[in-house]
Amino acid sequence: MVTRQGPARSIAVVGSRQTDDVIDWLGVRVAAAKATVSAYAGQRCTEYFTAPETAVLREVLPEFVAEGKYVRSTFAYLGWLCGQAESAAAAEAVAGLELLHAFALIQDDVMDDSATRRGRPTVHVRLANWHTARAATSDRRVSDRFGRSAAVLLGDLCLIWAERMLREADLPAASLDRAWPVYDLMRSELAVGQFSDLLNDLTQEPELATVLDIARRKSGNYTVRRPLELGAALAGCDRRTTRALQRYGSMVGEAYQLRDDHLGVFGEPRMTGKPLGDDLREGKATTLLVVARDLASPGQRAEMADLARRTPAPEDPATDEWVRRWQELIVATGADARIEQLIAERVDAAIELLSRAELPTRPYDALVLLAGRCTNRDH
Amino acid sequence: MVTRQGPARSIAVVGSRQTDDVIDWLGVRVAAAKATVSAYAGQRCTEYFTAPETAVLREVLPEFVAEGKYVRSTFAYLGWLCGQAESAAAAEAVAGLELLHAFALIQDDVMDDSATRRGRPTVHVRLANWHTARAATSDRRVSDRFGRSAAVLLGDLCLIWAERMLREADLPAASLDRAWPVYDLMRSELAVGQFSDLLNDLTQEPELATVLDIARRKSGNYTVRRPLELGAALAGCDRRTTRALQRYGSMVGEAYQLRDDHLGVFGEPRMTGKPLGDDLREGKATTLLVVARDLASPGQRAEMADLARRTPAPEDPATDEWVRRWQELIVATGADARIEQLIAERVDAAIELLSRAELPTRPYDALVLLAGRCTNRDH
Repeated sequence: MVTRQGPARSIAVVGSRQTDDVIDWLGVRVAAAKATVSAYAGQRCTEYFTAPETAVLREVLPEFVAEGKYVRSTFAYLGWLCGQAESAAAAEAVAGLELLHAFALIQDDVMDDSATRRGRPTVHVRLANWHTARAATSDRRVSDRFGRSAAVLLGDLCLIWAERMLREADLPAASLDRAWPVYDLMRSELAVGQFSDLLNDLTQEPELATVLDIARRKSGNYTVRRPLELGAALAGCDRRTTRALQRYGSMVGEAYQLRDDHLGVFGEPRMTGKPLGDDLREGKATTLLVVARDLASPGQRAEMADLARRTPAPEDPATDEWVRRWQELIVATGADARIEQLIAERVDAAIELLSRAELPTRPYDALVLLAGRCTNRDH
Repeated sequence: MVTRQGPARSIAVVGSRQTDDVIDWLGVRVAAAKATVSAYAGQRCTEYFTAPETAVLREVLPEFVAEGKYVRSTFAYLGWLCGQAESAAAAEAVAGLELLHAFALIQDDVMDDSATRRGRPTVHVRLANWHTARAATSDRRVSDRFGRSAAVLLGDLCLIWAERMLREADLPAASLDRAWPVYDLMRSELAVGQFSDLLNDLTQEPELATVLDIARRKSGNYTVRRPLELGAALAGCDRRTTRALQRYGSMVGEAYQLRDDHLGVFGEPRMTGKPLGDDLREGKATTLLVVARDLASPGQRAEMADLARRTPAPEDPATDEWVRRWQELIVATGADARIEQLIAERVDAAIELLSRAELPTRPYDALVLLAGRCTNRDH
């Protein structure tokens, strides 16, 4: 294994050739992981959904997992590479994280009543549409209920199959024994974080620290830190390397969530795959909105309360103008700039920290690249 | 280990002393399993639900799992005893099945929109009530949605923790390696069976064979056969013993589901813990209703269709009279007697089969007793 040595490097020092190399390498990795997960999901679906009336499930899941950015399995594999050489078995074990993520997304969309995900109808909406067409029922509420229930079940199966992918990958028992505590913690944090999220709305006036804590547990830990820890545990990384990955993971995970909250208000629906203004409509206490409320003048706070009261219905054409007014107001409070600053601080600190850890070249270059890539405006 | 030998025995031959013994033994076993599961659930909840606003979850789950008949963990432990001596580690491993069952019940109740379970409000109703009290919101729909989402999450955690109880019990790796395929099959069958159930209503006019197949996969396999197989796999039972347990499990599992469907219409709410007439109200294609439809004269079919059209709303005092008319009609078709006959045939065949397998005395006596006990009118 080639271990990077020498003086601390900043992102600028990862020159264009190395950057192109690592971008290519990441692209190949993600494509391979997508193929692995789609094939696994397809096999399980074919095995279990044998009844004719369950054919729709054989289509929905493999299609769903063939999309996405595969951030979690990538971080986990990079954690592995900090301690071991490339391994097909390790790649397969960590690919299961994308099924865990499918579980989370499918059930979250039911809970949030979201109509679109990645620019397409969500799984429960697709299943409800299928039910309406099949059952020839004119009662949409029956189909909606069916769609929600079937999506929850499909999510449950993803949760089960995710764990199977990890357990059944051809890794030594000692590797798995080290990994289970991280895996269990990650899964439980995910569910507990989602629970806190259900309770988290702006009317409760939470502190930024509280909202960041929920963000860290629900999304940050789960997206960056725990996957890195999982890969490091599978590989048996030493304590120093693991500690560096944990600290990098916490910082980039927080930056990732801050960016996600920012995109929830300022992101292009074409990029995010979600309709603009969903976070605003739900009155969710995101980091952006809590910072805006904290920085707002009394007049601006009154205007925010006024806008919240006049939330347009979904599909209402007034939504665009309503979102534009929110955006202007948030920029005027200074919250937009403050969030950008919080993100940049975390990304810089994470990269600085990496430069002091003695990581192998490949994961080092990739982690530097990803710190920026998953927290920038187009992520 | 004492292995029963000699000529075939029928249930009558299990004399009163042995019966008393085995009843006592089962009672002690179930009480111990309840204590184990409640303690485990309590520990996990205390560990994860640290935020003040999640206190309600620390109460709800341990209370929920402290009730129930513990049929699945009992069958699994009996499967174990067919190959190995009593073991605290095995008892703990199979106790996790009760958390798996909690997962299934909590999410099923959300999907079926059931208000009561075991004579008390269901988990999602309890969580919705808590939300109303806490949030001081007057919009019950918001609380209902919160209750459903939080219950689904609590179910997810039970699914995760169930698997942990099995994995973390102090059993040899070889034991677990034999058990995982059975465990994975059982969990997936459960979810797939529930999916079929969502699609299963009387308007589709399913055949009895189809309905029995759903019943076998969703409830029968999951309640009797797979738990027995799981215990046998953990213990490393020989092929002949495993085969006998599988066949016994299929027959008793089917009888169990037939009884459950019968109780859904004829059971005393005091005994079943569920309001009378829920199955009728939902128009679910249970075995009882499919047999009734198959045996009905044209006049009786018309009367059934008429009753279905005039389904009273929940809480409507006309429900009692409406259920009574259904009961009379079902008895008149002969379906009631036919279901009793199907149950008795399966129980008799299962006991006959056991008497030819050379099982150790304790599990033999217990399995004979349970074949009757879990399929009789008071189960």
